[in-house]
Amino acid sequence: MKALLVIGDGMADRPLKELDGKTPLEVAEKPSIDRIAKDGICGILDPISPGVPPGSDTATLALLGYDALKSYRGRGALEALGSGVEILQGDVAFRCNFATVDENLTVLDRRAGRIETDEASKLAEALQNVRLGSGLTAEILFKNTVQHRGILRLRGQALSRMVSDSDPGKTGKPVLKVEPLENTAEAAQTAKIINELTTCFHKILKDHPVNRERSEKGLPPANIILFRGAGTLPEVKPLPSQYGIKAAVISAMPLIKGVCKVAGMKLMEVKGATGTYETDVTAKAKVAVEALKSNDLVLLHVKATDVASHDGNIQQKIKMIKKIDRMVNHIIKNVDLDETIIAITSDHTTSIATREHEGDPVPIAIQGSNVRIDDVKEFSERTCAKGGFCRIRGKDLMPIIMNLMGKTKKFGA
Amino acid sequence: MKALLVIGDGMADRPLKELDGKTPLEVAEKPSIDRIAKDGICGILDPISPGVPPGSDTATLALLGYDALKSYRGRGALEALGSGVEILQGDVAFRCNFATVDENLTVLDRRAGRIETDEASKLAEALQNVRLGSGLTAEILFKNTVQHRGILRLRGQALSRMVSDSDPGKTGKPVLKVEPLENTAEAAQTAKIINELTTCFHKILKDHPVNRERSEKGLPPANIILFRGAGTLPEVKPLPSQYGIKAAVISAMPLIKGVCKVAGMKLMEVKGATGTYETDVTAKAKVAVEALKSNDLVLLHVKATDVASHDGNIQQKIKMIKKIDRMVNHIIKNVDLDETIIAITSDHTTSIATREHEGDPVPIAIQGSNVRIDDVKEFSERTCAKGGFCRIRGKDLMPIIMNLMGKTKKFGA
Repeated sequence: MKALLVIGDGMADRPLKELDGKTPLEVAEKPSIDRIAKDGICGILDPISPGVPPGSDTATLALLGYDALKSYRGRGALEALGSGVEILQGDVAFRCNFATVDENLTVLDRRAGRIETDEASKLAEALQNVRLGSGLTAEILFKNTVQHRGILRLRGQALSRMVSDSDPGKTGKPVLKVEPLENTAEAAQTAKIINELTTCFHKILKDHPVNRERSEKGLPPANIILFRGAGTLPEVKPLPSQYGIKAAVISAMPLIKGVCKVAGMKLMEVKGATGTYETDVTAKAKVAVEALKSNDLVLLHVKATDVASHDGNIQQKIKMIKKIDRMVNHIIKNVDLDETIIAITSDHTTSIATREHEGDPVPIAIQGSNVRIDDVKEFSERTCAKGGFCRIRGKDLMPIIMNLMGKTKKFGA
Repeated sequence: MKALLVIGDGMADRPLKELDGKTPLEVAEKPSIDRIAKDGICGILDPISPGVPPGSDTATLALLGYDALKSYRGRGALEALGSGVEILQGDVAFRCNFATVDENLTVLDRRAGRIETDEASKLAEALQNVRLGSGLTAEILFKNTVQHRGILRLRGQALSRMVSDSDPGKTGKPVLKVEPLENTAEAAQTAKIINELTTCFHKILKDHPVNRERSEKGLPPANIILFRGAGTLPEVKPLPSQYGIKAAVISAMPLIKGVCKVAGMKLMEVKGATGTYETDVTAKAKVAVEALKSNDLVLLHVKATDVASHDGNIQQKIKMIKKIDRMVNHIIKNVDLDETIIAITSDHTTSIATREHEGDPVPIAIQGSNVRIDDVKEFSERTCAKGGFCRIRGKDLMPIIMNLMGKTKKFGA
């Protein structure tokens, strides 16, 4: 028995006035997703716990069976891992943004006009081989990833992830001084390092030819690096050693890839998987079907339902749900459903109205030859609440799937 | 107010193709059990947590209100207690099998042809007063119970339950060398003792007159003892001191009896209660009615629904559910239902298809004069999922019952 877990990022929503009190899932035509609900067992699922809005990282940790409240150690190391940066126990990593500030270090654009990756790469080159001031010791690695995004990795003996962000999170605010969040020498040194790097990188970037050229073109210069989400590796037991399975993931998002890598899953590359509205879901479906041949568990993640929610774009969200439905359709037609468990859910509710992750539960449906099929006929936040699972937690999902696959061990005699 | 808790061992199941996608509970006629669902409040219950297949010992611990994940210390001591062997704090006990091996110690029959109790008793006599080699110190007690089953108790200062089994769990495999499962002197000594007893018992048994006679008759000789399930007493607070109640249990199974003894329950003996398909459920019902007169809580356990599941025997499972229904019918007719809470559930799902304990939840129904009656009309895995309890955990059941009985204390002011 194999299992496919389909996650529509932020796909669950709250009722919208614009949809006569319905949610995008309730409005979108999605016959293939509904078929999983109809032929399977449904329920609602709290990724972390009721009312707690999860990030995609903590939610994915939970959906892979981990207690995120205990194992989560910040975003940075996960995003770094998912971006191809090696992270070892003890390394502290940060998610970084190329951003635009004025002469008072007030943030004008948190993404430096969504600078192109090529330009960012040139700027990143100039940030290598930076030397820290006296008394500070850490090996420094800066890597730009896609567009304005980047990773900073600190490696050394006396580091801590317990430091605040320099990123103020909105424009019109000054770049923040990073503070230690606990009273340790490690946190104090890490905060000092980041503050020093902020100054040092700014000096290098503001006069860089790429930025001079951008200013001439009227584009916002990428003249500072904002740091956030300090993190170390979460403490989790990889799925292969826990259940004796092979697992793979298909996702365009470094953060999701990082979580899955920590969980011992193989990262599958898909040409055309972009994390945007344009993502090629058929390409993803094809790779998923292929991956199921050599893996026991495949996680198939689609980002853009969440993007639409953050954009407050109702029609795009409905369109993306339909795209996910076409993806599911391709899979249903190309796997042996008697031998394949298909689970579909969302990592969290993202409200189009608030444009934020929210703490409402998400719908879950699992089809498989041995599930207790209930009488839910459609996949949505409200229909699934009447399903045979009732209400479960995110961290319960993986044990349930593994048990249906015959991969769990009995507890007791 | 009194309470009766009826447990059908492994009674819950998954949908079966042979039953047109229904479960044995959905197919079996069981008007009395259904009446409890109809007149009561229903739900589904995860004995341990979703997806985790429990043993009968951990599940019963949970149903008695204990956190099995924290308190469980292996099977051996529970089974020993339930078999009438005294177990003190610090004792390590093992479940044993008389088994048949060839000259290479390959297991040919894990139950020595289900040897009769009389013959096993004669063999057990020869295993008394065994002396350990130099450096090993423990008081040894071996006791045969029913047929091929037995108990080994080690008593001493430097013992640990953290050792592996010698029982390979299947035929055609060699008897396993017992290994310490933690790096302590106690575990190392315990493993050495068991390995020495394996050799020593084998020497005594292989030339025993009873076995020579069995070989002449063409029966498999009971020429070795297999050890498994090392355990010490779980750390739990007995129900009488926790709730100020008197409690009793009716079960044919030593393992269940042991759990209940640890919980401070009185073991009621019932003539004709066998743990097999032939068990006399009317006799059990009569003793239960009687026991309710002098106890606040009575647990009434029937084993053979689980036996049928492990045997993959659909018709026997349906038959056993009907037998349990007759048992419930006798009780309903002979107690004052206004003054008696009746709860019915299963300790775990045992799938006829996989013949294993599974991690699916079990149905629960409670009738009582003060429960919030819901509109579930039948007792089954799927109907109860729509009940007023929604989904609860095994360890929640006893507080619920005790509260309905007015035996719980307020938490807070």
